[in-house]
Amino acid sequence: MDDPLRVLLFDVFGTLVDWRSSLIDLATANAAGAGLQADWVAIVDDWRRAYQPALDEVRRGSGWRDLDSVQRETLRDVLARHGVRLPAADQESLVTGWRQLRAWPDSRPGLDRLRRRHVTATLSNGHLALLADLLKFAGLRVDALLSAQLADSYKPDPEVYLTALRLLNCPPAEAGMVAAHPSDLRAAAALGLRPIFVRRPLEWGPGVPPAEPPALDGLIDADGLDRLAEALGC
Amino acid sequence: MDDPLRVLLFDVFGTLVDWRSSLIDLATANAAGAGLQADWVAIVDDWRRAYQPALDEVRRGSGWRDLDSVQRETLRDVLARHGVRLPAADQESLVTGWRQLRAWPDSRPGLDRLRRRHVTATLSNGHLALLADLLKFAGLRVDALLSAQLADSYKPDPEVYLTALRLLNCPPAEAGMVAAHPSDLRAAAALGLRPIFVRRPLEWGPGVPPAEPPALDGLIDADGLDRLAEALGC
Repeated sequence: MDDPLRVLLFDVFGTLVDWRSSLIDLATANAAGAGLQADWVAIVDDWRRAYQPALDEVRRGSGWRDLDSVQRETLRDVLARHGVRLPAADQESLVTGWRQLRAWPDSRPGLDRLRRRHVTATLSNGHLALLADLLKFAGLRVDALLSAQLADSYKPDPEVYLTALRLLNCPPAEAGMVAAHPSDLRAAAALGLRPIFVRRPLEWGPGVPPAEPPALDGLIDADGLDRLAEALGC
Repeated sequence: MDDPLRVLLFDVFGTLVDWRSSLIDLATANAAGAGLQADWVAIVDDWRRAYQPALDEVRRGSGWRDLDSVQRETLRDVLARHGVRLPAADQESLVTGWRQLRAWPDSRPGLDRLRRRHVTATLSNGHLALLADLLKFAGLRVDALLSAQLADSYKPDPEVYLTALRLLNCPPAEAGMVAAHPSDLRAAAALGLRPIFVRRPLEWGPGVPPAEPPALDGLIDADGLDRLAEALGC
């Protein structure tokens, strides 16, 4: 546990950016334009709940597909379940809406501080084309974009973390995985990366009990990226 | 030729950063510390000349190795040819010196302008770990780091350019390859990317005739990245 952390890998959706309020705003504006009424809060939450099971299916199946392709399918299913007939162009605008998610307020200054003393990289299930657009939109700067795409898989497949470590020439003990999601941290910690939990109590909206920090050896538990930068002495 | 350029891929060594004067300064300072005299200008130039043949050999051989590993070997050969016995630690400091190369003065402001309207990415023979350190050292910002490493090969192998296009979801006609080296541009243009020649008359030092722009259809010829930004309306 005493190895210095040279590399910090960041989960993106939920950890750096607020997918929920951004997508609800986008869907509501879209629907108003199309003269359509629906419970967009429930639809966005259901869409996000369909995300991990759909990625798990891709991991177990044959042939990697990118997140746009997976989300296009899950959105169609969720809309059908809610009985909402959204025009194809508006569906596509929601799929590309994952490139226009707002950063949590501490993400930008926190990342800027952390990259002074660490190599910072995304490690997201989003593909590189999406991440390049999203980080530019959100005004976030990291040293490198890394994605599950580079392992032709999705988190929490160990290959995703191992590929990132190989590409950054970094032994696991010198890398931290920063995420708001216990499953991501458990998978990384099992490979020897340092688990860093970032609290995002509003990820699923107000009134929803936030994720609890996982019980993992050496866990760093930070209330946002500014606090993490302080904890790491940046 | 009328497709809009969505993505710009940048060669790094020579195009964005001045490897020559940076390495000569580093080698001279190192040698002074070790009390060693040698013609560091000639050694650095010979080392750089050994670069492409060595990478070509890796491409034709079996098993990709990163640039640090290749340069460690070519440096040892060049030093032996010059009859210079440089301590191992100083040799290693020259190898890692490729992470501490100064940017050409227009690279930083030019890249900042270009990324307002384009997705910008490196496409270098340097591996990602090296590029992450180098771009931070040089203060350069791009949207994504891409490397020949992601194709397990080296430029000018077509697979390197095709892998970058695949990862950025970009058809060749919507991508430009920006380089100071005709061979890089010829390889990219053969695949349908737009060739963009950046003049770096001092790459090999003053008094050495600079590279001439290659005769390629649709070539953009720019005297630095600020001029390129103007030419592209950024």
